[in-house]
Amino acid sequence: MRAAFLKDSLLKFDSGVSEPIAQQGEILVDILLAGICETDLQLCNGYMNFSGIIGHEFVGIARSGRFEGQRVVGEINCVCQQCRWCVEGAATHCPHRTVLGILNRDGAFADTISIPEVNLHSVPDSVSDEHAVLTEPLAAALQILQQIDLTNKKVAVLGDGRLGMLCAQAIRLKTDSILVVGKHCKKMDRFNQLNIQTCLLNDLKREPAFDVVIDCTGSPSGLEVASAVVVPLGTVVLKTTVARNHTLSLAELVINEITVIGSRCGPFKMALELLDSQCFNLDGLITHRFSIEDVSEAMQAAVDPNAFKVVFDLSR
Amino acid sequence: MRAAFLKDSLLKFDSGVSEPIAQQGEILVDILLAGICETDLQLCNGYMNFSGIIGHEFVGIARSGRFEGQRVVGEINCVCQQCRWCVEGAATHCPHRTVLGILNRDGAFADTISIPEVNLHSVPDSVSDEHAVLTEPLAAALQILQQIDLTNKKVAVLGDGRLGMLCAQAIRLKTDSILVVGKHCKKMDRFNQLNIQTCLLNDLKREPAFDVVIDCTGSPSGLEVASAVVVPLGTVVLKTTVARNHTLSLAELVINEITVIGSRCGPFKMALELLDSQCFNLDGLITHRFSIEDVSEAMQAAVDPNAFKVVFDLSR
Repeated sequence: MRAAFLKDSLLKFDSGVSEPIAQQGEILVDILLAGICETDLQLCNGYMNFSGIIGHEFVGIARSGRFEGQRVVGEINCVCQQCRWCVEGAATHCPHRTVLGILNRDGAFADTISIPEVNLHSVPDSVSDEHAVLTEPLAAALQILQQIDLTNKKVAVLGDGRLGMLCAQAIRLKTDSILVVGKHCKKMDRFNQLNIQTCLLNDLKREPAFDVVIDCTGSPSGLEVASAVVVPLGTVVLKTTVARNHTLSLAELVINEITVIGSRCGPFKMALELLDSQCFNLDGLITHRFSIEDVSEAMQAAVDPNAFKVVFDLSR
Repeated sequence: MRAAFLKDSLLKFDSGVSEPIAQQGEILVDILLAGICETDLQLCNGYMNFSGIIGHEFVGIARSGRFEGQRVVGEINCVCQQCRWCVEGAATHCPHRTVLGILNRDGAFADTISIPEVNLHSVPDSVSDEHAVLTEPLAAALQILQQIDLTNKKVAVLGDGRLGMLCAQAIRLKTDSILVVGKHCKKMDRFNQLNIQTCLLNDLKREPAFDVVIDCTGSPSGLEVASAVVVPLGTVVLKTTVARNHTLSLAELVINEITVIGSRCGPFKMALELLDSQCFNLDGLITHRFSIEDVSEAMQAAVDPNAFKVVFDLSR
């Protein structure tokens, strides 16, 4: 089968990869669309030291099992279901987990993936492939709502990219006071079209003004900006992992008694229900569509500041 | 009067400093004992760019007002009492505040200090000067209990110093599972004598094992160690400010969805009640006592890894 394979920080297309063999409890899923995420770019920069097929955002068709022939999306953490974390409802933190295309398990930039059946969710008919492929990052955005109460809070979202867009729309379920801070006028236009206020990073006043700041920058400088604009006793949510080290003073966090919360994977069920209810505006978020053969061009496009979501079309 | 004055990162004794003039609402307090805190050492390293008389831990005798002639301790944040923060019960975050010996206000390494009367608390007769001078750092330690629920949690305290000792004893009010991690056998003996378990930093297993980790190291490496030993979904409390920059990867915080909370000043009333009830063992914590004339030797002693609390005796 076709796949994009990462080895020694080099990502290459390979047309002769063996099709995966479903292990016990697993189902083969034929990929329709797979999305490139900031984490994929970080993986190519050495993050997690991953070798294998990358990609963890997908929509596909299950070959067997209870969703046979149906469109499915899949949770990315493949867990033991037996440890303290799995039993106590925090399975995404299972210490025995593998993670699609990130940790000890091949991912979705391939014709076919093998994934535990329990990870799969059926995609409602009303949800297009182009929206369904956004289920995973949308769930990650919704995780913020599971962690902190944003009701009527004044919120800043740092980062005008893919995740920033999904976070801003998720946060809008709880508050109308949202400012998205970015660097790219063209990207920020997309937010303005949805009546989400924006501000260029250079124009952002470095003074405490926001109850909650969501860092979606994928940059080591994100936390420093967040610390400068969050109010005392406020909260900073770290939504993006960064392969590089941060260099910063933490004195402000102590003096202002800021809470910093890391935030990772979120609720697929809620994401699919919200996609089904059409309450998000996700049209036009996919700006580039590539064949998996053109993996290098696709990754390049995903780095382009004017790109939004870049996907691989594996249906062909 | 006598005072220890910081200017251009140089701390000097001066016997001819003018006595402060009490402004409206302020009271003059003649200092009995004043304690050296990690923050004072950081101030001398350029933290906060402070110029003036340093020192914020003290017990003294009020010259006038409702506590006239009585022993008093004083909260260090001098606030406007009118802003949002003051009105909403978060006065330590008043943006208009001055802070004793730290921010735009002279401190307690002097014969006399001027301080708002509302900041003062009377010291119960049962509490010795030597314990009373620990009210401020004890209140800071108790702030942790105000911020997070430690009931029966497994807690690590990083740092075997002054603040580590007070935090460990404060935390023991809520849980028996405490491990203090330090570098100095002699200091750790003090914890063992109080039946508090200890471990050398080099012997600490770098694996997730603690629900809550309190960083009292005053070192830029504290957060990195804390991130390595806190469990997923656990909490790290940053209890010490550090003048230098931290260089670290925040990926672990995101992946494990750790909460990091900055923690600063705490409840004086609770600290005094606990001192009055004799439920802490603070005897022998003061290892060095200096005259203010010997400020350089005192600061040197406070840096010595085998020192615990170093105080100035200003009663003479």
